[in-house]
Amino acid sequence: MDTIIRIDMAELKVTTEKTPPDFQLLGGRGLSARILNAEVSALAHPLGEENKLVVAPGLLAGTMAPSFGRISFGSKSPLTETIKESNAGGTAAQKLDRLGIKAIIVQGKPKDDQPYIVSIDSKGAQLLPAPDLSGKMNYELASILQNKYGKDIGVIALGPAGEAKMTASTIAVTDQDGRPSRHAGRGGLGAVMGSKRIKAIVVNAEGTKAIEPLDRELFKETVRDLIEILKQDKGAQSFSKFGTPGGIKFLRELGSMPSWNYHGGPVEGIENIYGDTIAQVNQSRGGRMHGCMPGCVVQCSIVFHADDGKHTTSALEYETLAMLGTNLGITNLDAIAKMDRMCDDMGVDTIEVGSAIAQVMEAGGIQFADQQKVLAILKGLREGAPLGRIVGQGAAFTAHYFGLDRVPTSKGQAIPAHDPRACKAVGVTYCVSPMGADHTAGIDYRDSFSKEGQVKRSRDAQVLNAAIDSVGYCFLAMPTKGKLMYEFLAKLLNARYGTDLEVEDVMNMGINTIKEELDFNRLAGWADVQNRLPEFLMKEKLPPHNEVFDISQDEIDAIFEDVN
Amino acid sequence: MDTIIRIDMAELKVTTEKTPPDFQLLGGRGLSARILNAEVSALAHPLGEENKLVVAPGLLAGTMAPSFGRISFGSKSPLTETIKESNAGGTAAQKLDRLGIKAIIVQGKPKDDQPYIVSIDSKGAQLLPAPDLSGKMNYELASILQNKYGKDIGVIALGPAGEAKMTASTIAVTDQDGRPSRHAGRGGLGAVMGSKRIKAIVVNAEGTKAIEPLDRELFKETVRDLIEILKQDKGAQSFSKFGTPGGIKFLRELGSMPSWNYHGGPVEGIENIYGDTIAQVNQSRGGRMHGCMPGCVVQCSIVFHADDGKHTTSALEYETLAMLGTNLGITNLDAIAKMDRMCDDMGVDTIEVGSAIAQVMEAGGIQFADQQKVLAILKGLREGAPLGRIVGQGAAFTAHYFGLDRVPTSKGQAIPAHDPRACKAVGVTYCVSPMGADHTAGIDYRDSFSKEGQVKRSRDAQVLNAAIDSVGYCFLAMPTKGKLMYEFLAKLLNARYGTDLEVEDVMNMGINTIKEELDFNRLAGWADVQNRLPEFLMKEKLPPHNEVFDISQDEIDAIFEDVN
Repeated sequence: MDTIIRIDMAELKVTTEKTPPDFQLLGGRGLSARILNAEVSALAHPLGEENKLVVAPGLLAGTMAPSFGRISFGSKSPLTETIKESNAGGTAAQKLDRLGIKAIIVQGKPKDDQPYIVSIDSKGAQLLPAPDLSGKMNYELASILQNKYGKDIGVIALGPAGEAKMTASTIAVTDQDGRPSRHAGRGGLGAVMGSKRIKAIVVNAEGTKAIEPLDRELFKETVRDLIEILKQDKGAQSFSKFGTPGGIKFLRELGSMPSWNYHGGPVEGIENIYGDTIAQVNQSRGGRMHGCMPGCVVQCSIVFHADDGKHTTSALEYETLAMLGTNLGITNLDAIAKMDRMCDDMGVDTIEVGSAIAQVMEAGGIQFADQQKVLAILKGLREGAPLGRIVGQGAAFTAHYFGLDRVPTSKGQAIPAHDPRACKAVGVTYCVSPMGADHTAGIDYRDSFSKEGQVKRSRDAQVLNAAIDSVGYCFLAMPTKGKLMYEFLAKLLNARYGTDLEVEDVMNMGINTIKEELDFNRLAGWADVQNRLPEFLMKEKLPPHNEVFDISQDEIDAIFEDVN
Repeated sequence: MDTIIRIDMAELKVTTEKTPPDFQLLGGRGLSARILNAEVSALAHPLGEENKLVVAPGLLAGTMAPSFGRISFGSKSPLTETIKESNAGGTAAQKLDRLGIKAIIVQGKPKDDQPYIVSIDSKGAQLLPAPDLSGKMNYELASILQNKYGKDIGVIALGPAGEAKMTASTIAVTDQDGRPSRHAGRGGLGAVMGSKRIKAIVVNAEGTKAIEPLDRELFKETVRDLIEILKQDKGAQSFSKFGTPGGIKFLRELGSMPSWNYHGGPVEGIENIYGDTIAQVNQSRGGRMHGCMPGCVVQCSIVFHADDGKHTTSALEYETLAMLGTNLGITNLDAIAKMDRMCDDMGVDTIEVGSAIAQVMEAGGIQFADQQKVLAILKGLREGAPLGRIVGQGAAFTAHYFGLDRVPTSKGQAIPAHDPRACKAVGVTYCVSPMGADHTAGIDYRDSFSKEGQVKRSRDAQVLNAAIDSVGYCFLAMPTKGKLMYEFLAKLLNARYGTDLEVEDVMNMGINTIKEELDFNRLAGWADVQNRLPEFLMKEKLPPHNEVFDISQDEIDAIFEDVN
C-alpha cells in the first residue's frame, strides 16, 4: 500500500504519490476521513469541483484473511451535506491492495461532457474517455468492461442514476461472479462520482498475489482462530444458511423491521420473505449462497433466481426486503427481487429509494402494497420520468416534494430497516453518528426496548464499526463485538505491518476516525443541536410492543463529549 | 392593539388574549420573532403541528400615517429551515390594528382534511370550515369572500400552492382594489398556512376608524414633514411614475439586474421592460399606478393591463421583471405580466419560482428565453404537473433535482434580483441576515463595487429594515435611510403610544429583532460558518464590470459580534 493514485479530472491527469509514512495505519474509512479533512473545504458543494471522492481499500484487504476485503468510498455527501463513508464488498479492494494502492483520490471536474474510465493494473493507472459507456446500466457496463479487460477484473461501476447525480445513487463493485451486486449505498456518493464523470474504475491485478504479512505465523494462527469461532457463531451460521433475511421473523416480532412507512403492524404474506422460505424457493430454482469476495467463510450473499431458473439478483438483502418490501406493504418475493435488480442496475440505494417510495405512498401518490406501481416508478427512474427522478433523490427530497412533515430520516438520510423504537441503541446511532441514519455505523440489539445503557451500546458499536471500516472487515462476519474482536484486529494488523498495536490502539483507530468525521461535520455547519430523530419516533407508538424512542437526549448529546 | 387572537387548529378553537404590557412596542417582524422564540421549538418541523404562524400588523398600521400599513407573517420557514418573516402591503394590517388586534397566532393542525377560514370583525374572530374553497385560486378566492363578506374586507389569502405546501408559496393580501396582489413572498410561509389548513383570513373593520394617536399634534406635524421630504425625494418620484421598474436601465448597466441565470450579459429587447416603456404602454391601455394601501403618497404599484385593455396583474414589480424576465432571457412585457398574474393567482413567489425556472434552463430542461415553455411550466404548477410542483419548491430544490452544483441561493432561498457582485452590501446581507437571501432585509447601492465599507452599509440597512418591518413602514417609501428616518419613526411612535423613544431606542428595536432571530436560528442548528454565498459568486466575473463578490469573509463574520 505504498501508492496513492490521484486523478485530476479538471486537468484529465493521473499522478502517483508515495503514501506518507503517517498514513501507514490509516485505511478505508479512517483514511478517507483524514484525506477529506486535509484536502476538502467542508463548505464545498458536494457536486462541485472542490469536493473529492476517496476510494480506499481496508488495511488488510489484500491479505488472505477472510472477509477483510471491503472497500471504502468517502466524500462530502450530496445527500447529508456532511462527510460520508460508504463501503462495499466485492473484489476490488483485494486487487487494489495487491497492486500496492492505498487510495484513489478523484478531484476536479472535466470541462467536457463525456464519461471516463480509469484503468488500473500493475503497470499503473490510465484515464480514458469512454463516450460509448454513457448511460449504461451496471450489469451491461460490467459485462462490456469484462469483455474488454478480462473476466478477472474488479469493476467499480457507476450506474445511470449516479451519472444523473441523483442523491440516492450508489457506487457498485463487482462480486466474485463478476456481477455489480455490491453497493456502497448510503449517502448518494454515486452522484459525486457522476459529477466527476467517472463511469467506472477497472482494477486488474493480474500477475500479483496475496499480500504476505510480515509475521506469517501470527497471521495464520490468528486467521485460524477467527475462522474457528466464526464457524461456531450462531449468527454467522444463520447468515451462511439464510443470508441477512434469516432474522426477519424475529425482527418483525420485535417490530424493528419496518412496515407501512414506519407506521408498523402486520403485513400479509410475511412468511413469503422469511429467510428459510427464500432459501427453499431459491434452492429449488438453482439459486445459491455465495461470498461476495474470495475467501469469505460466511457466504451470506443470496444469489437469487427467478422461477424460470435464471439469475435475478445478487444479493437479496434484509434491508431491501424491508425497505422495498414490508415498509411498502409488499411481501411478494419475486417482485422485491426484481426491484432489487432494477436498483442495482440503475445504481440506487434500496434503502433510500425504498423509503422515498414509502413517502409517495404516504402522500397518496400511489397506494401501499401496489407492487406494480413500485415497479413502474423504478422503470421511470431508469427512463428519467419525473417521479422516478424524485425518488432517486431520496426520502427527504420526496417528502419535501409532497409537503410531508413526518420524515423518517436523520441527517437527511433515510432511516434503514431497524426502527429505533424497537432497537434503541441504533436510534442513538442515527442521532449522533457522523454517518447519519446508517445502521452499519453502529447497531446493537441487546435489551433493545430498555431505556438504559443504549448510549453506551451505541457508542461501543460505533467505535468498533469505525475501526472495522478502516481495516476493511465485514460488519456481518463478526462473531464477537467485544474485546476479542479488537484483539483479532490488533494481531492481524501487527502481523501484516510489523506493528505492536494493542486493543486500545485499535479502538483508538475507531475513535480517531469518528473524531475526524465530527470535525468535518462541524466545519460543514452541522450543529450538534440537530442530533435529533424526527418527532414521530418520540410520539407514535410502534406495534406490537407500543414502544417510542425515549432515550434521554442529554445522555445522547454527551456521547462523544470526550472525543471533541 | 390590546388583543392577540389565538387559533388552535388541533382543537378548532379561537381564543382571545390580552396583549402583555411588555409587547407594547413590539409589532410586525419584532413581535413575530419574540412570539416564535417563546413558543416554538427551533427544531420543530416547519410543516408539523409544533410550528406556528404569526400574523402581526406593524405598530402604526391603523393610524393615518401613510405607507405604514404593512403586515408581517412569521414562522419557522419550510424553505430556509430557519426563522422567517415576510411582509406585505394591502389593507389587512390597517384593519387589524383598527380592530385592536396586535397579532394572530395560528397553531396546531386539524385532524380532518378540509380548509378553514377565519372571519374577524368588531365582534370577534370565528373559525369556519370552508370545504368549497379548497383549491381556489387567489383572485377567485378573494372575489368569493368579498361577495360574501362585503367589498371592503381585507383578505389574507392562500393560493393552491400554499395548500399543496410548496416551499415557494406565498401568503397574499388584498390591495385597495380588492385584488390579492400583495404577497408575503419569501420563505415559503404559504406552506405553513397550508399545513394549518387556513385558506383565508377575512378582516372586516366596518364600524371602526383610524387609530387616534395620543399626541395628535406631534403626529400630524411629523406626518406632514415626512410627506414633504418624500415628495422631494428623487427615488420616491421615480417610484410614483414608473414603479420599481424605474431603475431597470441603471441596474442593467450596473450588472446587478440578473440575466441568464446570473451568468450576466445583455438581453435583447431589454428596452421593452424599462420603467418608462412600461408606463407608456400601460397608460395607453388604461392601466395606472396606485397605492396598495389607503393613504400611500408614493403609489409605486403598477396596475397593468393587457393590450385588450383588461387588467392583467397588479403590481408588476422589478423583481418579477428580472426573475421571470431577464434572468430567463425574456423581455416580452406581456408574457412576464401574464406569468406574474399566474404566480399571484397560484400564490407562489416570483423570485423563488423565477430562479427555479432558471435552474431548469441551466440544466437544459427547457431553453433560455423560451417564454412559452415558462408559461407551460407555470400552468403545470397550477395543475400539479411534476415539473410545476418541482419549481414550486424553489430554486435549491430544483437545482437538487437536476444535480446542479451552481446554486444561486443563500440559506436555501433564491438570491433576488440584486446580484451581490454588483451590489456588495446586499451580498453581505444575503450571507448573514437571519432572513437569508432577501434584499428587503438590507440593501444599499452606494459605492456598490467597492470592497470597503459594505459590511457597515449592510448592517445599517439590516437594522433599519428590521425596525421598519416592526413599525410596518414600507421599504420603498424611505426618503432617507439615516438618522432622520429613525427620528420620524421615534416621533410617530411617541405620538401614537405616549412613549419617549429616541433615535437609539428605535435602532434598538431593529437590533433586538435581529438578535431574537439569530437566537432562533442558532437553536435551529444554523451554524455561522454557513454564512457563505455560493462559490460561483466569488469565481465567475459578472459582466459588464467583471466584478466578483470579494468582501472579506472575516469582516462579514464579525458583523453581529456585538449582537450575540
